Parts: sequence; C-alpha cells; structure tokens
Amino acid sequence: MRRQISIAKEIKYEIETHIGTLSTNAKGWTKELNLISWNGQAPKFDLRVWAPDHEKMGKGITLTNEELAALKDILTSM
Amino acid sequence: MRRQISIAKEIKYEIETHIGTLSTNAKGWTKELNLISWNGQAPKFDLRVWAPDHEKMGKGITLTNEELAALKDILTSM
Repeated sequence: MRRQISIAKEIKYEIETHIGTLSTNAKGWTKELNLISWNGQAPKFDLRVWAPDHEKMGKGITLTNEELAALKDILTSM
Repeated sequence: MRRQISIAKEIKYEIETHIGTLSTNAKGWTKELNLISWNGQAPKFDLRVWAPDHEKMGKGITLTNEELAALKDILTSM
C-alpha cells in the first residue's frame, strides 16, 4: 500500500502593486499581472489567476525584472 | 481517517510553435512562451518553465489571444 502524506504549507503573500487585469471569466475569476512579495521575500512580477476578492489563487508564474523585459521584447516582436 | 486518492492523469501536449525563451537557469531549465495544443485542443499561448529537452514541465499559465494582447498593452504601458 502506497502511503501518501500531504503537508499543508502556509504561503504568505502580499500583492504590493496590482499592475493590470488581462481577463475576467464568467465566475469573476481574473487573470492578473501583479507585483507580489512571497513569504516576505523581495517582490516579483506574478502572472496568475485569482478568485473574486483574491480569496483563492490559481496556477501562475513568477517573473524577474529581466524575464518581464524579455517577455515584453518577445511580444513586441510578434 | 481521511482517505486520499491520487489519480494520475495523462496530459497530452504538443508544442506547435516555440515563440521565445525568457530565461535559462543554472540547471538548464528554461522559462518559455510557446503555442501549445493541450489534449488535441486548439493551441493556446503558454508561459511555463521547462526542463532541458522539455522532458518535464513546471508551473505555468495559458493565455488566449485576447489575454496575450492585453498583456502586451500592459507591458508597453509600464
């Protein structure tokens, strides 16, 4: 029998700056670009799905300043 | 006793177009913008971390054409 232990990890985050909303779906979930500090670390850009009132978060990705600049270049060259 | 069932789901994907690489870390993992078809569905833009040779994928986010355009506007206005 395979034992499985799930460890609930508390993630502290602070949305320091809301930069923009890319979309909002029928249930009010938004896809946003924010500047977020995770667990008190230096803030990073963050592209992620959020429940209304930011009660829950969905999958997403963090981006450093350099990565955001690279993404901007890629998008403008498309 | 809380029963936990983990269901291994097979995800089929095809990287139809590699659009650009935002960064590469010391272990060779890359953060990329691609156009990917998931489970045979219509391709979507996809911002995600990949292991070298795309053997494994990490967390990421899919973007519709409209969301990508909105992101481009947000980045150019920053």
